[in-house]
Amino acid sequence: MTTSAKLAEQRLAEQKLYEDFAVEHMVPLWTQIGNLMPATPAPAAVPHVWRWSVLYPLAERAGQLIPVGRGGERRAISLANPGFKGLPYATPTLWAAIQYLGPREEAPEHRHSQNAFRFVIEGEGVWTVVDGDPVAMRRGDFLLTPGWAFHGHQNVTDQPMAWLDGLDIPFVHLTDSAFFELGPDALSSRETPERSRSERLWAHPGLRPLSSFGTSSFGAQHPKSPLAAYRWEHTDAALRAQLELEDEGYPGVVEPGHAAVRFTSPATGGDVMPTIRAEFHRLRPGAATQTRREVGSSVFQVFQGSGVAEVSGIEHELGHGDLIVVPSWSAFQFAAGSSGVDLFRFSDTPIFERLHQDRVQIGA
Amino acid sequence: MTTSAKLAEQRLAEQKLYEDFAVEHMVPLWTQIGNLMPATPAPAAVPHVWRWSVLYPLAERAGQLIPVGRGGERRAISLANPGFKGLPYATPTLWAAIQYLGPREEAPEHRHSQNAFRFVIEGEGVWTVVDGDPVAMRRGDFLLTPGWAFHGHQNVTDQPMAWLDGLDIPFVHLTDSAFFELGPDALSSRETPERSRSERLWAHPGLRPLSSFGTSSFGAQHPKSPLAAYRWEHTDAALRAQLELEDEGYPGVVEPGHAAVRFTSPATGGDVMPTIRAEFHRLRPGAATQTRREVGSSVFQVFQGSGVAEVSGIEHELGHGDLIVVPSWSAFQFAAGSSGVDLFRFSDTPIFERLHQDRVQIGA
Amino acid sequence: MTTSAKLAEQRLAEQKLYEDFAVEHMVPLWTQIGNLMPATPAPAAVPHVWRWSVLYPLAERAGQLIPVGRGGERRAISLANPGFKGLPYATPTLWAAIQYLGPREEAPEHRHSQNAFRFVIEGEGVWTVVDGDPVAMRRGDFLLTPGWAFHGHQNVTDQPMAWLDGLDIPFVHLTDSAFFELGPDALSSRETPERSRSERLWAHPGLRPLSSFGTSSFGAQHPKSPLAAYRWEHTDAALRAQLELEDEGYPGVVEPGHAAVRFTSPATGGDVMPTIRAEFHRLRPGAATQTRREVGSSVFQVFQGSGVAEVSGIEHELGHGDLIVVPSWSAFQFAAGSSGVDLFRFSDTPIFERLHQDRVQIGA
Amino acid sequence: MTTSAKLAEQRLAEQKLYEDFAVEHMVPLWTQIGNLMPATPAPAAVPHVWRWSVLYPLAERAGQLIPVGRGGERRAISLANPGFKGLPYATPTLWAAIQYLGPREEAPEHRHSQNAFRFVIEGEGVWTVVDGDPVAMRRGDFLLTPGWAFHGHQNVTDQPMAWLDGLDIPFVHLTDSAFFELGPDALSSRETPERSRSERLWAHPGLRPLSSFGTSSFGAQHPKSPLAAYRWEHTDAALRAQLELEDEGYPGVVEPGHAAVRFTSPATGGDVMPTIRAEFHRLRPGAATQTRREVGSSVFQVFQGSGVAEVSGIEHELGHGDLIVVPSWSAFQFAAGSSGVDLFRFSDTPIFERLHQDRVQIGA
Repeated sequence: MTTSAKLAEQRLAEQKLYEDFAVEHMVPLWTQIGNLMPATPAPAAVPHVWRWSVLYPLAERAGQLIPVGRGGERRAISLANPGFKGLPYATPTLWAAIQYLGPREEAPEHRHSQNAFRFVIEGEGVWTVVDGDPVAMRRGDFLLTPGWAFHGHQNVTDQPMAWLDGLDIPFVHLTDSAFFELGPDALSSRETPERSRSERLWAHPGLRPLSSFGTSSFGAQHPKSPLAAYRWEHTDAALRAQLELEDEGYPGVVEPGHAAVRFTSPATGGDVMPTIRAEFHRLRPGAATQTRREVGSSVFQVFQGSGVAEVSGIEHELGHGDLIVVPSWSAFQFAAGSSGVDLFRFSDTPIFERLHQDRVQIGA
Repeated sequence: MTTSAKLAEQRLAEQKLYEDFAVEHMVPLWTQIGNLMPATPAPAAVPHVWRWSVLYPLAERAGQLIPVGRGGERRAISLANPGFKGLPYATPTLWAAIQYLGPREEAPEHRHSQNAFRFVIEGEGVWTVVDGDPVAMRRGDFLLTPGWAFHGHQNVTDQPMAWLDGLDIPFVHLTDSAFFELGPDALSSRETPERSRSERLWAHPGLRPLSSFGTSSFGAQHPKSPLAAYRWEHTDAALRAQLELEDEGYPGVVEPGHAAVRFTSPATGGDVMPTIRAEFHRLRPGAATQTRREVGSSVFQVFQGSGVAEVSGIEHELGHGDLIVVPSWSAFQFAAGSSGVDLFRFSDTPIFERLHQDRVQIGA
Repeated sequence: MTTSAKLAEQRLAEQKLYEDFAVEHMVPLWTQIGNLMPATPAPAAVPHVWRWSVLYPLAERAGQLIPVGRGGERRAISLANPGFKGLPYATPTLWAAIQYLGPREEAPEHRHSQNAFRFVIEGEGVWTVVDGDPVAMRRGDFLLTPGWAFHGHQNVTDQPMAWLDGLDIPFVHLTDSAFFELGPDALSSRETPERSRSERLWAHPGLRPLSSFGTSSFGAQHPKSPLAAYRWEHTDAALRAQLELEDEGYPGVVEPGHAAVRFTSPATGGDVMPTIRAEFHRLRPGAATQTRREVGSSVFQVFQGSGVAEVSGIEHELGHGDLIVVPSWSAFQFAAGSSGVDLFRFSDTPIFERLHQDRVQIGA
Repeated sequence: MTTSAKLAEQRLAEQKLYEDFAVEHMVPLWTQIGNLMPATPAPAAVPHVWRWSVLYPLAERAGQLIPVGRGGERRAISLANPGFKGLPYATPTLWAAIQYLGPREEAPEHRHSQNAFRFVIEGEGVWTVVDGDPVAMRRGDFLLTPGWAFHGHQNVTDQPMAWLDGLDIPFVHLTDSAFFELGPDALSSRETPERSRSERLWAHPGLRPLSSFGTSSFGAQHPKSPLAAYRWEHTDAALRAQLELEDEGYPGVVEPGHAAVRFTSPATGGDVMPTIRAEFHRLRPGAATQTRREVGSSVFQVFQGSGVAEVSGIEHELGHGDLIVVPSWSAFQFAAGSSGVDLFRFSDTPIFERLHQDRVQIGA
């Protein structure tokens, strides 16, 4: 047989083999390894900016057209990463959405294994009821509804209110760990207290209710933060203090001109929920962060001020309420505009740290 | 305007809204919530059986046609869950493949962030070299190549050898945490010792090398097991002992007639790797497990004997080398045939336990 | 030989044996086991009350006679448990002392491996400087100087000030783990800020400085609380909230009429220091605690109000500033007088929990 | 008044003050601080050697004179550190004793909160029954009776047997955490199996009974090792392997010529019991350890071979069975004689590591 005949025969045999693989539900590694096992993470997700000035009017239109209630459950519109061809995911693990509640509207109670938080970019007047505890939502507040806590919302004002929802929906969907249960149709509480019961028990620095330790030697477990609300006045004060300490020559900031806090559980000092990390960053006017790469993906929202995010070498101007997604291992840097910038951030980093898959690279 | 005119107008407005959402890369929750947030996990993966009598001849044909070497790296053929439409994943998180190495063949060294193990259903004669330490592979052995360890293989005999590879490739791909690096083209060691250096240091029950604790107060961290090989003679002895203790009336078995061990790190007593759990189960002739549902997915392989797996209400007869996938939250039960059955199992359970998303339901 | 002669011979032989033991530095267990290994803890320490009305004038006299400075280091007078025959220990593990600083006086800087705190029963005007950070001391405050932190004090007023010192001196002495080092003779800071730098960084509920996590995957370790001061206003507010929640029918109190908080590290949610637990308890007028026994010893001080402590069946009336020691496994109960009672408590419980020697028995 | 008159008056006033302190059960710090808070640990315990050639005959005489049974419970003779003036403690935390059981004798069952182990320097023929599980005791074995496990012993031979007992009796006594309970007068088992049930379940390297994980998400807790016996054949093999690896040029030994293992719990990879660490060290002929100081105290026993221990600058020749105490923070070094030396060691180090009071200084 000639060489070319042999080659042709080999090709045929290979083709037949691949066909037989397919019939038996098998796939060879050697044709896929480049895609499956890249040298460094090769996200399908892309860096992308969503403008608050676009999001809010769309949410408003939804408020006029779409009722909120049982079935649809929430008037939330998610950021769909352009890299995912229509999937409603900001990143492969994280969901980010704008939720909109019209005047006097209510969203009914339910619970799910997905961990959730709200961050309030502006407005007030909604109470979210978490396991029966009404929690006021106000500008700058960070609010938790950890997995399997019943929750519903009510707007007690004549004004609409919109905020950012963050969840681990994609991660939970991907890993087939989703549970969902409807609650009672009526909200379990219509009270509108200034402070939730959770805060009254837990929002005292370094002080834990003795009843929270349980009766065993090892104490009750608190995998999720028992504190439902992190108020803007505290976040702002903590950031201000770091910058003042920097002015006085003392440690506290992360790097020059960059103050930051992580939202943590007062029961553990660790992340508020097992899959989601949340932080607040403040850059002085003109300050910039070091360039970093991290395993895991993040969503940033500008709370106030403005700045420039450079992600994978592309600069994006960001103003009030704008959101940007940073995919895994993409180099990113933030620089503040002339009045500084306040950034809310959430990420899936706890997943990687808990599974020892985390890496960070600092510098370009 | 008439009611129907109003309705038509509403439909048009909604349609326009959804189009505008799409332009802005937004997706409403209310149209997707049923799919995204089901009442209980709704896996795309399906229970499926791959027969060893089918797999092995296909691997053999690949051995004749496809060379192993740089680029393709490994002659491994993965189980592609029929629910995934061609994706080479056994479950959303786990990769399972048959790897085949011909007489005198070598697979070159590389390393990756994915965690990997081998389980040997039959044969011997291959040494896998893990971070320079040659580890013999023999029938019944469970062998580790944890994330970021360099590894290559050589077959020193005139017989081919095939085995099961298990990795967290889908999980790592999904979460964009993949790193990969080629090693030297030549194997770092061609020695063929009976026992690896890792075993010589670590395979002494309850005894740790003092040097493994490091010098800090807290000791060196060992997120992954330092023991490269779990030998069949030990696994078999441990299972036999449990059944003998049961005969004598003492505790030890998991349930009547069902002995089981988990492969663990001697440095922590926990899972061998952060994302993968591995266990070995032995059922006496005629014994059956309770029906269980678990968050997370598993792959079982029959090592010896035979039996019946009932998954989601469907019975599957299983014999030597056969593999079955159990998707998340699917009810499953195993019953041994007349000569009992030995089952190797691996799963992604550590992911859910570490993220507090684990649930187990025992009984029908 | 007669029986009695045999017995006499036996006695002689035994006596000779015991003498030979003594020469060789050996002691038989069988003559000591009752003392060494009692059925339940048999403390040498006794329950005892020290009156503030007695302590304070004695401290005042010491203030007139004894200078404070290098060598003696501190004008602290310790509670010497009557069961210990002159040893300056409140319990076998805990030291409790009244420390007195005259107008304009200073106590020089030093550091030691012993963990220390201050609790301020009354007065103000002293700053304690902890690792260079000046911390105001005021009525009701709980202040930390964890092991190996440099610290000194200055009184910037024309009034004397006295407070409670708590340390693990006996435990550290007993276990031969004491280290001590003098600091500079002059205080490292004479500033008198309202709030310490430590509070400015850490006293924000649930918010951690990002810089506190360090750069490793696992973050910086914080075996001791980074928060130097727990202010009365927060403690009082936390206790008040628990009783209000009880009035409203919600959980929060430990038991009816009994509010309590534990001072914890914001970095871990656990005890402030590895050997010392500190708590604050408030009983409503007329309320009483359940009777408890615990492994480990405690010291209580009445902060305000009055009540009755029953320890080992004996009742003790307690008023402002009075201190009572509860030895290990002694049954104790507190009952509030007509205006309620506020109790500061510290104990060695973390030692037992960390070593798995803890036990609690609730009820008589 | 003259200066000397003033001084005399001051002296009188001071004396009166100290008398008043004493009446009120108070002790000033300033007169005691040098003793209470030394610059580095100042143990009362002294380094001391007990010779096996002296201990054994004394134990033998006790065997002839003193019956073993209820009340005295055990024929154990403790090493009484000469620094403690008759107290039966080897160090402030550790008890070490030679226990002697005559032919066919039994020691009745009891349990206590103190953690205990046995180390067998020579002989065999005794079974210790731990929570109903008979455990053979043979030369070189390390055997556990963790706190609160019932245990008794029987000698089934016509030869006496003696061994080393190690407990935390002094620590538990000191901290008032002792509990003790008699068991049934008759041994709960008179079986004499080769291997205990505990070993049959647990002594398989890296393999854990699945039943040991319990049913909760976090698994059953194992603060104490579930493995009752660590056999000499394993210890010897592990040490031999380290020295062979050193010969081959691979890591494994602690330092040149010095192999060592720590006895650990297969359920955690940590110390066998919360208060006691146990290790086995082997020095090649002529090899020597680095000089070290550690917080905490140790007892070493020569198992075979001979050598020289230098402690606090004094050299001690040690041969078969000899014991030496190393007090806290005393510089110590071991050097092997011409045939090498095997050393068993136990210490209280876990106490200090768990309480973050540990320090190590390597080098002179």
